[in-house]
Amino acid sequence: MTVPPRGSGAVAMPPMDHAARRDRLRGSLDGLWLLVSAPANVRYLSGFAGSAGHVLIGPAAAADRVVTDDRYAQRVAVDAPDLRATIDRDAVGVALAAVVAGGTGGGVAGGVAGAVPGGDGAVRGRPRLGVEADHLTWSAAQDVRMRARDRDVEVVGTTGAVAALRAVKDDAEVARLARACELTVAALDWLLADVVAPGVTERQLAVALERRFVDLGADGVAFPSIVASGPNAAVPHHEPSARPLEVGDVLTVDCGALVDGYHADYTRTVGVRYLSKELSDIYEVVRAAQEAGRRAAVVGATAGDVDAAARGVVEDAGFGARFLHGTGHGVGLDIHEAPAVAKGSGAALVVGTTLTVEPGVYVPGLGGVRIEDTLVMREDGRARVLTDAPHALRLVGD
Amino acid sequence: MTVPPRGSGAVAMPPMDHAARRDRLRGSLDGLWLLVSAPANVRYLSGFAGSAGHVLIGPAAAADRVVTDDRYAQRVAVDAPDLRATIDRDAVGVALAAVVAGGTGGGVAGGVAGAVPGGDGAVRGRPRLGVEADHLTWSAAQDVRMRARDRDVEVVGTTGAVAALRAVKDDAEVARLARACELTVAALDWLLADVVAPGVTERQLAVALERRFVDLGADGVAFPSIVASGPNAAVPHHEPSARPLEVGDVLTVDCGALVDGYHADYTRTVGVRYLSKELSDIYEVVRAAQEAGRRAAVVGATAGDVDAAARGVVEDAGFGARFLHGTGHGVGLDIHEAPAVAKGSGAALVVGTTLTVEPGVYVPGLGGVRIEDTLVMREDGRARVLTDAPHALRLVGD
Repeated sequence: MTVPPRGSGAVAMPPMDHAARRDRLRGSLDGLWLLVSAPANVRYLSGFAGSAGHVLIGPAAAADRVVTDDRYAQRVAVDAPDLRATIDRDAVGVALAAVVAGGTGGGVAGGVAGAVPGGDGAVRGRPRLGVEADHLTWSAAQDVRMRARDRDVEVVGTTGAVAALRAVKDDAEVARLARACELTVAALDWLLADVVAPGVTERQLAVALERRFVDLGADGVAFPSIVASGPNAAVPHHEPSARPLEVGDVLTVDCGALVDGYHADYTRTVGVRYLSKELSDIYEVVRAAQEAGRRAAVVGATAGDVDAAARGVVEDAGFGARFLHGTGHGVGLDIHEAPAVAKGSGAALVVGTTLTVEPGVYVPGLGGVRIEDTLVMREDGRARVLTDAPHALRLVGD
Repeated sequence: MTVPPRGSGAVAMPPMDHAARRDRLRGSLDGLWLLVSAPANVRYLSGFAGSAGHVLIGPAAAADRVVTDDRYAQRVAVDAPDLRATIDRDAVGVALAAVVAGGTGGGVAGGVAGAVPGGDGAVRGRPRLGVEADHLTWSAAQDVRMRARDRDVEVVGTTGAVAALRAVKDDAEVARLARACELTVAALDWLLADVVAPGVTERQLAVALERRFVDLGADGVAFPSIVASGPNAAVPHHEPSARPLEVGDVLTVDCGALVDGYHADYTRTVGVRYLSKELSDIYEVVRAAQEAGRRAAVVGATAGDVDAAARGVVEDAGFGARFLHGTGHGVGLDIHEAPAVAKGSGAALVVGTTLTVEPGVYVPGLGGVRIEDTLVMREDGRARVLTDAPHALRLVGD
């Protein structure tokens, strides 16, 4: 066996400062205790990446802790060495006990970013526990509220508190995203140069590509690869099939590697040996739209400006109705996160914002074209393209 | 390139009867409209496996539909050919309009299995829409309730309605699970026979194993494989590391293939060339516990009986405190589903129940042993072991 090792260990990455992230979150909570349950948020705030864990944020750093169960007792010590760990399956019980022991959490519901309606009415002096209303299910929230009532604790549903922090990537995160994007570009380049040929199926390409990610040092795939050939390229989220490539096919590959929890997102469309004039013309429209979107991504612009720039090119060419989705999305510990790069999105691009720019045109029966890069906004006010690769039409498979 | 095709297409599978499943669900809803949002439930009821879809169940079959967006317009026609598709990003709006047009949904909140507290009070004659309170987030539920109020529709949070159906697998599902388990056993057998050797790392084993799944015809992996060697075997959910195997290591591999949405779950523990007496003795305890659990799995018993049988053997041997988790869980379209095979679980085993039996003993610093099979309850009252492979201690790596 000479399989290369999996994981990003081969390349040293700058350390994460989880304590600083917790302090920033605390600053937005106005003294409210918050029980964080969304797995990517737990990982962001603690480093703990097991499948079952919570982070409890207290009014002061000494009250913070990660809560997980027996199965992860050893792992949490490795993943989150700087944070107190409580080994208990009942994270809600741990949180309620801490809140009761710690006394009233300051602030009022209205003072917390995105407190949802339907929480308990604020009663001065009652201890309060925040939960993630964007993650907790309705039935789980009802359960927490009933248990809290028994202990005279008020439950506040918060939305977006951690997402707002995660939308601005720090340098340690950008390093991981950059590495994931670099591996992705290298793997797809290899696939197009060495593997794509008439007769090879979409599934064979997907398997070969995903293996290559891991061989190059990725931890895994960011999402199941989309490999869409010929008429299948008219389906934005096509699942790789047994269809063999034919000469003259358009071929869209949308893929990403995963490095230390961070996701790459990258798409290129090529022709198999040649491409019809109709599809080549569409390619040029999408290429120009994608370039316009990239150029519109500057600090101070909004995500909606990026969408408008890309969409305008597609609409001017008469393909507006064939552009079936938004222009892009943020990317990080989740493959889709804030900001949505969509029509009218007012989210401002700031230093540390990541976004994909991925316009597409889809014509049923004929095929389609999508071109996508992952970008991060830098200190000079411009976007750095993490998936650094040419955009001109490429013919492959010879 | 001679990569074999991905997917289960090589083996013909019996067709799924989604319409019959929708009718069974309808029978439990007492006339309530239900907007199904959990992806595995959507797939179960319609066949649609895209990442963004809802199924709306009406009081009569003609009202049923699948709701998805533009990106999936072509795919939904292939995945769910027998069901009306509505292409609209706003599934809640579609559902509210249908409920208003369709008039009052019968039944009262108390008549629906698992209606959650905190829903709107039942008002006779108001049209009613059920949602999945176990899947919808708290904030999404609040949004639905506010929109419903504007249209004078009452929202009912239901729990477990689809899960109750899914807990009893039909023959088409058992065929897929059996195939997934068969591929899993074959792949791990190959790994242990041909790949495991001193010096090979945990990550290399995980990569090789997961490739083998796909080469054998799986659609992918059911979950990230656990490969835990030496002292790492004391961590039930260890993530594969760069640790190379050593002679005398205990080695636990917990893995599963994915076939047409159905998950296998399978664990074997082996010794690398030899195993110490201490670990061999623990192996024998776990093997006996696992056998006792399998024997206790009979139609009419409870999941708690299976747990008690396996746990009793471990406790009698003095390792009760080292058995850190439940004995098992149901498995199907999700890797973990009902029933929990845990202490005191009263869930009855019926024909079509699936369950894993996976006792383990974990000793920090030394290592651990887990042995797991996936079972399905059959018409003769006994369990069929889908992961059909020997349980005796195996020494490998020569």
